[in-house]
Amino acid sequence: MRIVVTNCNTTREMTEEIVRGARTAAGAGTTVTGLTPAWGPESAEGWLDSYLSAAAVMDLLRTYRGPAYDAVVLAGFGEHGREGVRELVDVPVVDITEAAAHLACLLGRRYGVVTTLERSRGQIEDSLETAGVARNCAAVVGTGLGVLDLGDAARTEAAFLAAAEQARAAGAEVLVLGCAGMTGLERTVGEKLGLPVVDGVGAAVKLAESLVELGLTTSRAGSYARPVAKRRTWGGGASEGMGRPGGAGE
Amino acid sequence: MRIVVTNCNTTREMTEEIVRGARTAAGAGTTVTGLTPAWGPESAEGWLDSYLSAAAVMDLLRTYRGPAYDAVVLAGFGEHGREGVRELVDVPVVDITEAAAHLACLLGRRYGVVTTLERSRGQIEDSLETAGVARNCAAVVGTGLGVLDLGDAARTEAAFLAAAEQARAAGAEVLVLGCAGMTGLERTVGEKLGLPVVDGVGAAVKLAESLVELGLTTSRAGSYARPVAKRRTWGGGASEGMGRPGGAGE
Amino acid sequence: MRIVVTNCNTTREMTEEIVRGARTAAGAGTTVTGLTPAWGPESAEGWLDSYLSAAAVMDLLRTYRGPAYDAVVLAGFGEHGREGVRELVDVPVVDITEAAAHLACLLGRRYGVVTTLERSRGQIEDSLETAGVARNCAAVVGTGLGVLDLGDAARTEAAFLAAAEQARAAGAEVLVLGCAGMTGLERTVGEKLGLPVVDGVGAAVKLAESLVELGLTTSRAGSYARPVAKRRTWGGGASEGMGRPGGAGE
Amino acid sequence: MRIVVTNCNTTREMTEEIVRGARTAAGAGTTVTGLTPAWGPESAEGWLDSYLSAAAVMDLLRTYRGPAYDAVVLAGFGEHGREGVRELVDVPVVDITEAAAHLACLLGRRYGVVTTLERSRGQIEDSLETAGVARNCAAVVGTGLGVLDLGDAARTEAAFLAAAEQARAAGAEVLVLGCAGMTGLERTVGEKLGLPVVDGVGAAVKLAESLVELGLTTSRAGSYARPVAKRRTWGGGASEGMGRPGGAGE
Amino acid sequence: MRIVVTNCNTTREMTEEIVRGARTAAGAGTTVTGLTPAWGPESAEGWLDSYLSAAAVMDLLRTYRGPAYDAVVLAGFGEHGREGVRELVDVPVVDITEAAAHLACLLGRRYGVVTTLERSRGQIEDSLETAGVARNCAAVVGTGLGVLDLGDAARTEAAFLAAAEQARAAGAEVLVLGCAGMTGLERTVGEKLGLPVVDGVGAAVKLAESLVELGLTTSRAGSYARPVAKRRTWGGGASEGMGRPGGAGE
Amino acid sequence: MRIVVTNCNTTREMTEEIVRGARTAAGAGTTVTGLTPAWGPESAEGWLDSYLSAAAVMDLLRTYRGPAYDAVVLAGFGEHGREGVRELVDVPVVDITEAAAHLACLLGRRYGVVTTLERSRGQIEDSLETAGVARNCAAVVGTGLGVLDLGDAARTEAAFLAAAEQARAAGAEVLVLGCAGMTGLERTVGEKLGLPVVDGVGAAVKLAESLVELGLTTSRAGSYARPVAKRRTWGGGASEGMGRPGGAGE
Repeated sequence: MRIVVTNCNTTREMTEEIVRGARTAAGAGTTVTGLTPAWGPESAEGWLDSYLSAAAVMDLLRTYRGPAYDAVVLAGFGEHGREGVRELVDVPVVDITEAAAHLACLLGRRYGVVTTLERSRGQIEDSLETAGVARNCAAVVGTGLGVLDLGDAARTEAAFLAAAEQARAAGAEVLVLGCAGMTGLERTVGEKLGLPVVDGVGAAVKLAESLVELGLTTSRAGSYARPVAKRRTWGGGASEGMGRPGGAGE
Repeated sequence: MRIVVTNCNTTREMTEEIVRGARTAAGAGTTVTGLTPAWGPESAEGWLDSYLSAAAVMDLLRTYRGPAYDAVVLAGFGEHGREGVRELVDVPVVDITEAAAHLACLLGRRYGVVTTLERSRGQIEDSLETAGVARNCAAVVGTGLGVLDLGDAARTEAAFLAAAEQARAAGAEVLVLGCAGMTGLERTVGEKLGLPVVDGVGAAVKLAESLVELGLTTSRAGSYARPVAKRRTWGGGASEGMGRPGGAGE
Repeated sequence: MRIVVTNCNTTREMTEEIVRGARTAAGAGTTVTGLTPAWGPESAEGWLDSYLSAAAVMDLLRTYRGPAYDAVVLAGFGEHGREGVRELVDVPVVDITEAAAHLACLLGRRYGVVTTLERSRGQIEDSLETAGVARNCAAVVGTGLGVLDLGDAARTEAAFLAAAEQARAAGAEVLVLGCAGMTGLERTVGEKLGLPVVDGVGAAVKLAESLVELGLTTSRAGSYARPVAKRRTWGGGASEGMGRPGGAGE
Repeated sequence: MRIVVTNCNTTREMTEEIVRGARTAAGAGTTVTGLTPAWGPESAEGWLDSYLSAAAVMDLLRTYRGPAYDAVVLAGFGEHGREGVRELVDVPVVDITEAAAHLACLLGRRYGVVTTLERSRGQIEDSLETAGVARNCAAVVGTGLGVLDLGDAARTEAAFLAAAEQARAAGAEVLVLGCAGMTGLERTVGEKLGLPVVDGVGAAVKLAESLVELGLTTSRAGSYARPVAKRRTWGGGASEGMGRPGGAGE
Repeated sequence: MRIVVTNCNTTREMTEEIVRGARTAAGAGTTVTGLTPAWGPESAEGWLDSYLSAAAVMDLLRTYRGPAYDAVVLAGFGEHGREGVRELVDVPVVDITEAAAHLACLLGRRYGVVTTLERSRGQIEDSLETAGVARNCAAVVGTGLGVLDLGDAARTEAAFLAAAEQARAAGAEVLVLGCAGMTGLERTVGEKLGLPVVDGVGAAVKLAESLVELGLTTSRAGSYARPVAKRRTWGGGASEGMGRPGGAGE
Repeated sequence: MRIVVTNCNTTREMTEEIVRGARTAAGAGTTVTGLTPAWGPESAEGWLDSYLSAAAVMDLLRTYRGPAYDAVVLAGFGEHGREGVRELVDVPVVDITEAAAHLACLLGRRYGVVTTLERSRGQIEDSLETAGVARNCAAVVGTGLGVLDLGDAARTEAAFLAAAEQARAAGAEVLVLGCAGMTGLERTVGEKLGLPVVDGVGAAVKLAESLVELGLTTSRAGSYARPVAKRRTWGGGASEGMGRPGGAGE
């Protein structure tokens, strides 16, 4: 089977890293194809980035012309868009946020999420809530590191371990890596913490494979019916430099 | 004061209608400026449209070069994006979904929402939940009419009244118009139902004025900090015809 | 329009202070009339005071013979009675507790309340819950100061700032002044904290104006139907000295 | 031991009926003293009546000069005031609303409440919620009968049975009599329905006896600390005829 | 009346201690019969013990051939089985977990549970949740002592007081003894803490007496219908030494 | 890998049927070993059966002496025991109730469960709640058929379709087979309903494989620590005929 894994940002290096993680998790018969949005933010940190990313990922899949695929994995932790992609494609769609939480619920009575910036907490909490798996989440804790700062492995690990202790004190018995860019970290920190650590990318790949193998796909009854046929324009194409965006209201 | 009201779709007639509703509600000293996204869906019905719309509305405000404004009203009922716009601009941002619910809570112990297509129910429920005002929502009921079908006033009113009875049976003591395109309907149906009917556009205009007059604006501490400076591209610019979108997975 | 603002206690100085706050918030065309209950507690601190106050405020409005008014603002933070007043009068009724929370929800993802005595926490939590706006309340924190101790501005400000830090640590991104007697404090502490601070009196005045301008008033369907005609006696008229009340059970 | 049972209205016949029910439930060594408020509504139906009643009941206990008592039972189903009475007296206080729910939870997985007028539903739901026992309440259903209409036994029984079927359909496995004036009905309708039916008056008497026998009374730490010493006036003493109350806003 | 009190483990000394506590609480006309399971764990600490205990207690009551009884008290704090026993017998069944919580709700706005090992927290939280009384539980705190370590009174008291402070800081105004083996401790620690402390055994005895005296018993409609007639075998009879159990998966 | 699938009752035919379903779902490298409890109920219908079954399944795994296994699937829909088994074995444990719900959440916004007898509803609701996946469950509906009545395929299908319509009316967009004995039905009814139908056995096998392949197993920190070493006896070994069990209280 072929699983398409979409990065939520335009940074190709991150797509490659995610694909490496996905391949490690994938079964023998699974081909993983990584896709990078043609537009959007270079990293998704906050609500503005998240909504921009959601549209870009939908456009990416809408205009995809490669080999047919059997499932989609959305590799943006806490990012928006999964319901829109469920409307768009006929194959199962698994978001790494919900995927990690689903598996974490099977491993302990309460789980915690360790993410990048504190500001992402709200999005993650809302994403878990609407996915229906927030009940057993004890805490979402930030490390203070930005998505593009995760390259320094030692610093990332130290920050993760410190945040993990906060989650543990709040009752977490299992941890979730709260960023696609943390993929791989689960092994090193899991041992040090003595706790299971779930990576959303791997979790989503396994859940996508599971759904495909069981012959299950998104319900078209109700919420995720196919998009209504209509005129849509997908973005203005304007690029934004390195400055901060700001409306004229400011 | 100047309030910018953004339509969530590219249909200018609807922007005009919304602006008419907004002006009816606005105070003497308030100027209402309607904005139509340069891209996005011609109407927002479902999650895909909603996320596309969220990005388009953020782009609209990001690239806005008109006179300075004091507040933003987001006129897409149940549509995404409000948190992103809160990050983007320094002035208060009020979404018509939450606005209608806030006022409805003051008028009865439980309120109900009457919207267009049944498929929008999920988005509206999630939007009210994360806005913190879902607790007293008794029901979200669809009329079965699409956004662009609301032109036929008699049919719309009949469908609204039928759906309203369902909401009432579920405990609603106040009703909310669940689509920006229904603005104006509150008067006719309110009398027939003997219930207060809240229009989100009017509600949002009053809440925006209230915040401005009280000198209050979005907190920058935590969730709605300013967007991080980085590279972002706002859309590919590709247009979609009248067909149904669909990924290669299908 | 005329808005009647009712103090929840018999202390006229506090009514005057509240009226000053209300007038600051009120629009150009709004007349604010302050009313002080003829009976009840000299300050409301705790459940006994709150229920006594609720009856006194209802009696105050029931026997009011002044010029007609367009809305009622109930200026007792966390105090009971709003549903009863909604039954009693035909105009919109806004309680400062709910009002502050409604506006706070528009300004950040989570808000906190800073109030007087710790013992008021329960009433405030229950009041926010039944008003339907507790979901995004991160914490209600007491300053340890009684209602009639708020006169010492420096001490009040210091106590407020300390309590505000607790609320912030619990996730609050916006603060609410948890006592009508704190009106005015929002400006000084807001700047020091770098957070929006919402005063319930101002918030309620704006919401009351909003409802009046939109032509909306309390639903008579269900919960807030007019009181049934019957015999009622409004109090025995007995005064209580400065002692502690106590039943014979003690 | 002596248990004081307070009626929530000024109708002595109802106090007597409640006392009869309380005595049937009371243990051999328990003396039941019924008290009727000197002021307040002749029956409590709606929020205005409920808050007026709360103050009147507190005044009744505050000015009580009879023999010492060991516990208080508040016999107003869904009425306010229990927290204020807990502050006021040093002995255990049990409200019939919560009492019935506590016992009902022990008898089935979900319970339902059958009350008088539909308009009481909100108060009862809120009362159960803040008492901490709403979770297993499947439904609160009105019979359409007013408190003072319960005298016609056949009509009351028929209305109760009809409402009970609605509660059952909503999942109730146990029923609660939702009005102190229904005391005694539990036996006749219980048999016909094949369900346990809990009367709040009897339940509250047993819970009050239980607390007294276990040497337990209200915590003074936090919410229910003794009232602060201060000036309070208990009502203006004005009587209201048979008309509908209404503020000048109307 | 006769109340059967079942210990949840096979340690007879603990049954005796529980019976002593039950008799202290029981009314003059109540006979308390203590029963010890013929099989099961020697103490219940954790989920495995709890489910084993549930089956053993059901078997104990199923095979009981002593004098008829009027109610059952299940004396295992946080242990499973109450719903099964409700199906099995026709008399009222009260579990000490829920019993303590029901009474605690009447004594303060929030209660806390102090239990033995931290690992029991989850079971207790789930038990309170499904019993419908978790809403006002502020915290469940462990003392770090095992069930069979409670014999050292001084150590137990010290550990209890330390844990109680944690519960208090979390908002508890009333405490609950979180283990049947703590019965008797409520008096000594209650005084030191200045808080009411509820023992589940005493609470359950009073609630059982209350239900019997009111003529109430478990509903057979729905959840707790009588067990379906069928073949069942009650255990293999194998004993386990002092080692740790472990499946072949290890 | 080897997955042990435990039936919750003593009926070997049902174990075989479950194993067939499990093998259909299992991956190429997975060996499925079915285990039937040596004792317990012949079918699990109700709480008494469920707790008896929980102990029997734990005993089954405790005394298992076959080849080592990599994961456990507990094939009793809505039955108790999963937390105890998690304490007992070192490999991942997946219960079919939670498994079906986890996958169903990925396929639609709300799911519904169609089960056997109405009386099982409560157990299933509680099981989903504590597993952390109840939030998006729209309804649990009974077919009125007992576990051992499922053999008549036509009747089962008809009853399932009728119950499914109820779940759909309550908002379910995805269905879950609410009994291990229904395995296989998902294909036939799914097509007729036009909805995805999830079988818990297949879902649990895929989730167990996923956890094993990701190298994840139950957390030992907190709730699911290994059982404490102590004396335990596993049942009295007494058999119960075909009669109804009943305590001497009756």
